[in-house]
Amino acid sequence: MDKLILHEDPLSGNCYKIRLTAALLGLPLERKFYDIQKGETRTPEFLAQVNANGRIPVLQIGDKFLPESDAACFYLADDSALVPADRWDRADMLRWMFWEQYNHEPSLATLRYWLTYIGADNLTDVQRAQIPGKRAAGEAALKLMDERLAGREWFVATAVSLADIALYAYTHVCEPGGFRLADYPNVQAWIARMEALPRFVPMD
Amino acid sequence: MDKLILHEDPLSGNCYKIRLTAALLGLPLERKFYDIQKGETRTPEFLAQVNANGRIPVLQIGDKFLPESDAACFYLADDSALVPADRWDRADMLRWMFWEQYNHEPSLATLRYWLTYIGADNLTDVQRAQIPGKRAAGEAALKLMDERLAGREWFVATAVSLADIALYAYTHVCEPGGFRLADYPNVQAWIARMEALPRFVPMD
Repeated sequence: MDKLILHEDPLSGNCYKIRLTAALLGLPLERKFYDIQKGETRTPEFLAQVNANGRIPVLQIGDKFLPESDAACFYLADDSALVPADRWDRADMLRWMFWEQYNHEPSLATLRYWLTYIGADNLTDVQRAQIPGKRAAGEAALKLMDERLAGREWFVATAVSLADIALYAYTHVCEPGGFRLADYPNVQAWIARMEALPRFVPMD
Repeated sequence: MDKLILHEDPLSGNCYKIRLTAALLGLPLERKFYDIQKGETRTPEFLAQVNANGRIPVLQIGDKFLPESDAACFYLADDSALVPADRWDRADMLRWMFWEQYNHEPSLATLRYWLTYIGADNLTDVQRAQIPGKRAAGEAALKLMDERLAGREWFVATAVSLADIALYAYTHVCEPGGFRLADYPNVQAWIARMEALPRFVPMD
């Protein structure tokens, strides 16, 4: 594989997904850091060279740039056991990854970011008005995960896959956003399984 | 392939993605209709049998149920030319599909739904406060698509893929949400290419 460089902010769970995938696969990954809050992903250089969408993470593979955390994880793991070989299981894995980006990340990750990094006192009125809706959506997401994990070890089939990595990233740091993992015991047990994987690396 | 049933609301672009994928592949698809606005995807029967997340589309494959539009499209197209064989192109396709669900659908599809189906006068204050942000995000999404399509026919490599299907669904009906496709000529030309594909089916 060509040289891999992760353009990232270490506070971002989306960036961490890619780092964790590479670690579990034993792939070396160079890291280049940006501070989102200082606008370092909106400079003309970043927009022209790394990502016209002004966002991280971006996985650089040789001279090619791949935005979107889950696409980058898929690229790294495409020929590995982290992407199931069975057609149904592969689609089921993508189901949980798309669900994470649409239903889970916009509530759990956003509340963590607003309450921990921006700070409750600095939110705009539009942001503050959205908190109850995001709180309810986050609790619903954790409940759905807890029900899915009843009687099973991993989200898809019987082995760890990219679905677990994608969901682990913002789930295991949801408490600063105001959620209680103790309310979701199956999720807690699954988090412990993730952290016991060989070659696991923690978030910074 | 086992019998395919699409659990859908025909007004939903996410449902239409699956129907268009099946049509382009020549796969027969039975359709079962639900009215989101009447709460027909939140009944105890729907939650227990079809999708505990209370959402459509869900693709039923024999006795299995697959939520998330893009995962369902991937299942149908997994062994076809709509999913590129090249590793980079496959990841690049997923990049645009994840981007659509995270950056494009929450602005373009939501404004269409709010302004056309709920109606501007019936929006909550929290919804109304989000309109300017969603308007700006939607214009940015259309601009990024227009730039991507400069000098190329399709989003990924040189052939139509699931990335085009995923993006076409809510792009071609964005005008009732207050956007002007004439401002994005590369997008307009690509829409015409999509609609000229063999076996293309329009949204209801």
